Amino acid sequence: MNRRMVVYRIGQIMMLEAVLLILPLLVSLLYGETKCLLSFCAAIGTALLLGVIPMIFMKPRDNVMFAREGFTIVSFAWILLSLVGALPFFFTREIPNYIDAFFETVSGFTTTGASLVPDVEAMSKGILFWRSFTHWIGGMGILVLMMAIIPTDSGRSMHIMRAEMPGPVVGKLVPKLRETAKILYLIYFALTLIETLLLLAGGMPLYDSVIHALGTAGTGGYGIKGDSIGGYNPYLQWVIAVFMVIFGVNFNLYYLALMKKFKAAVKNTELWIFGTMILVSTVIISINIFPVYGNVHDSVRNSFFQVTSIMSTTGYSTADFNVWPSMSRNILFILMFIGGCAGSTAGGLKISRLLIMFKSIVNDIRQQRHPRSVVKVKIDGKALDDTTIRRVSTYFVLYCLLMVLVFLLISFEPFDFETNLTATVSCFNNVGPGLGAVGPAGNYGGYSDFSTLVLSFAMLLGRLEIFPILLAFNPTNWVNKNK
Amino acid sequence: MNRRMVVYRIGQIMMLEAVLLILPLLVSLLYGETKCLLSFCAAIGTALLLGVIPMIFMKPRDNVMFAREGFTIVSFAWILLSLVGALPFFFTREIPNYIDAFFETVSGFTTTGASLVPDVEAMSKGILFWRSFTHWIGGMGILVLMMAIIPTDSGRSMHIMRAEMPGPVVGKLVPKLRETAKILYLIYFALTLIETLLLLAGGMPLYDSVIHALGTAGTGGYGIKGDSIGGYNPYLQWVIAVFMVIFGVNFNLYYLALMKKFKAAVKNTELWIFGTMILVSTVIISINIFPVYGNVHDSVRNSFFQVTSIMSTTGYSTADFNVWPSMSRNILFILMFIGGCAGSTAGGLKISRLLIMFKSIVNDIRQQRHPRSVVKVKIDGKALDDTTIRRVSTYFVLYCLLMVLVFLLISFEPFDFETNLTATVSCFNNVGPGLGAVGPAGNYGGYSDFSTLVLSFAMLLGRLEIFPILLAFNPTNWVNKNK
Repeated sequence: MNRRMVVYRIGQIMMLEAVLLILPLLVSLLYGETKCLLSFCAAIGTALLLGVIPMIFMKPRDNVMFAREGFTIVSFAWILLSLVGALPFFFTREIPNYIDAFFETVSGFTTTGASLVPDVEAMSKGILFWRSFTHWIGGMGILVLMMAIIPTDSGRSMHIMRAEMPGPVVGKLVPKLRETAKILYLIYFALTLIETLLLLAGGMPLYDSVIHALGTAGTGGYGIKGDSIGGYNPYLQWVIAVFMVIFGVNFNLYYLALMKKFKAAVKNTELWIFGTMILVSTVIISINIFPVYGNVHDSVRNSFFQVTSIMSTTGYSTADFNVWPSMSRNILFILMFIGGCAGSTAGGLKISRLLIMFKSIVNDIRQQRHPRSVVKVKIDGKALDDTTIRRVSTYFVLYCLLMVLVFLLISFEPFDFETNLTATVSCFNNVGPGLGAVGPAGNYGGYSDFSTLVLSFAMLLGRLEIFPILLAFNPTNWVNKNK
Repeated sequence: MNRRMVVYRIGQIMMLEAVLLILPLLVSLLYGETKCLLSFCAAIGTALLLGVIPMIFMKPRDNVMFAREGFTIVSFAWILLSLVGALPFFFTREIPNYIDAFFETVSGFTTTGASLVPDVEAMSKGILFWRSFTHWIGGMGILVLMMAIIPTDSGRSMHIMRAEMPGPVVGKLVPKLRETAKILYLIYFALTLIETLLLLAGGMPLYDSVIHALGTAGTGGYGIKGDSIGGYNPYLQWVIAVFMVIFGVNFNLYYLALMKKFKAAVKNTELWIFGTMILVSTVIISINIFPVYGNVHDSVRNSFFQVTSIMSTTGYSTADFNVWPSMSRNILFILMFIGGCAGSTAGGLKISRLLIMFKSIVNDIRQQRHPRSVVKVKIDGKALDDTTIRRVSTYFVLYCLLMVLVFLLISFEPFDFETNLTATVSCFNNVGPGLGAVGPAGNYGGYSDFSTLVLSFAMLLGRLEIFPILLAFNPTNWVNKNK
């Protein structure tokens, strides 16, 4: 493996994190939070140190990059990013246990939004801004951001993009990778800005608007109120709900729309399934919770908000769905697994994976009945190659096995079955809240350090979609055969 | 489709059921249960009627059988078998609701052992015998039994065997299918007899011994006491536990052992994994429940019994594991999915499927690192063809999707998350008890008629391993293109 280049690239990312940390520093300055100022400075200093040293001493001799270099860079960058990103929480003592701070940061970058802070309203503005900003960075991916702003001479960065971007198939929008990354970030930024303005227009204070726009854009779910979005007016709740849908859609479609290829964008199968699932779930839950609210508008609004929040894996809430009837809770539980569209900032299995699996099942059953027929699995008119299909089912099996493992590892905890199981599913799929003690009204503070670490890795596995981490930690990766 | 032959074969099976119903009739006669006598006679009459009419009027013109004829015969035979098998429960009014009686019978034939009878000790001897006898019939399969005793002129019965025998790959022991079926049933009968004798030797009454041997052999789990096996002495508990392991092993290995091919039998990978999983789970649970029992023997015995019971998907219990610590309960929950070995009477996913999935994942990851290498997935030294591997992953995805569907369909019930989820998993994997209200101390009596039917179909899907039912109920199956 080209170790020099791996270390060099990770160094670059640390530099980028130092730059990104300036933003919350400015917020602290604005609100006169001295304690935060110092903590952010210390964190920036650490990031710079970790960035400068490898960049000076590990200048790569060549830029050759294969799949494993890509996987390794992405995995280690994300872990180091979280280790350093946790420092402000720890230095300010707002999260006094470093492992807890690490969990909170991983949860931020992976856009999970699972929190173990008991009273979020007691935290300082600068810290809360950093907490939500990590969602925004992690949503589209920090390596994609680096690609967009730093010109690299390597033509092989596709491996990095593939490792960081969610979904079974990663396509370039334009021939040049750097341009693709730029376009994605521009769309991302523009949509975040529009949401902020719409929230401002509805009477939400500026600070709150920015925080919630960042949390929605990354489909993260960190808020600043004890009752999440429940205390804001219905207009604001509708805006956030609609934007949760928007950020759960494949960004390629927005690019197509910008290119005025509306037809191609609207014909996308994944989009239609996403929409239909939201619609059907909203209707069933609205009917199911009608007796709780007693009027149509409240039932529909709360139902739509929770459905979009869980399906986009954001995790904001306007109601404590943990006290809803079984049917509604169980539907939300199932939606946690599904997640949004590929190429969005959402987590979960992704609809396109489910679609590929479903189509290949139908194909397989047809073949059992007519053994001589050979039919290709097609999505949006394009035939998928066997490797993609096999990799999707491999992914699914690994996804199940690893979730079982995480569930068993946190079984030492005294929590009930429902809490441990939904905590596992929610973290792995980057949703945030679960049911039981980790429901919207609860938090992850009750877990031991060991389980906190296990759940942190579950979030990373879910966000990076397993393979990069598995390959990076594979011991044979480090045996240096072909250089 | 060759409809005449399908109907004719199903008629044959009805005749066989009429013959099998004579056994519980004799038990009733022995214990002088007049009410039961009449009910069994009525059930036998119904089975004869349903058997004689098609056998007279639907004599097939030819015996050509393709996969879809095999699937259709097996699916409809199992449903009709349960519809008729439910009659004695219904006629005696020991289960006054016919849908409930159907559930209890499906649960018997599929060797699930999930019961909705609140007080099993109040039932009559003849009925309880029939209830446990269905386990024995369903364990090895009624169509396999028919093959063993009725000579058929069709060489294509392999399709039937494939549809009824559990596991990803079905092999013949000897070139002739009929001989294979005979050998399997002989081994099955001999092992059941040995268990009965060992239980008798331990002081268990004859009736109890037969009942529990039938329940163990089919890995079903119907008993005759309110506390399952908990009231019997430790020796008897050990005997049953060991036989649950024995019936969870692939029967082909016993044939190999009989042929003195011990080496080949002992080298079987699936067997080793099965043993290791039982050992590891027993040790962890023993340690975890030690504080509950306070001594090593009780902890190990209860742990081993529950582990073997769940893993072989039998469902007997010596302790209410629903009140055990989280770790133990969660391990048992995971074991429900795994089940026993292929070619045994156990349910669940089967270890060989997990093994194939695991090996193909390792293969796939290796290929991601070295895209040019081509390595075949091998089990016990034999390379598996791509169709088998693809079918295993298709099976797994379908298995997950259908379980999600069942879980959602029974979500109308007022039960908690844990009860509904474990009821789904337990029924689908043919285990029997779950956690919460359907734990070892509870029963399925609280479910509505709708959910009772849904769970009955879940048990059938699990026992017949999805494909036969899916293909039999596929509408295109009935459109008669090629005759």
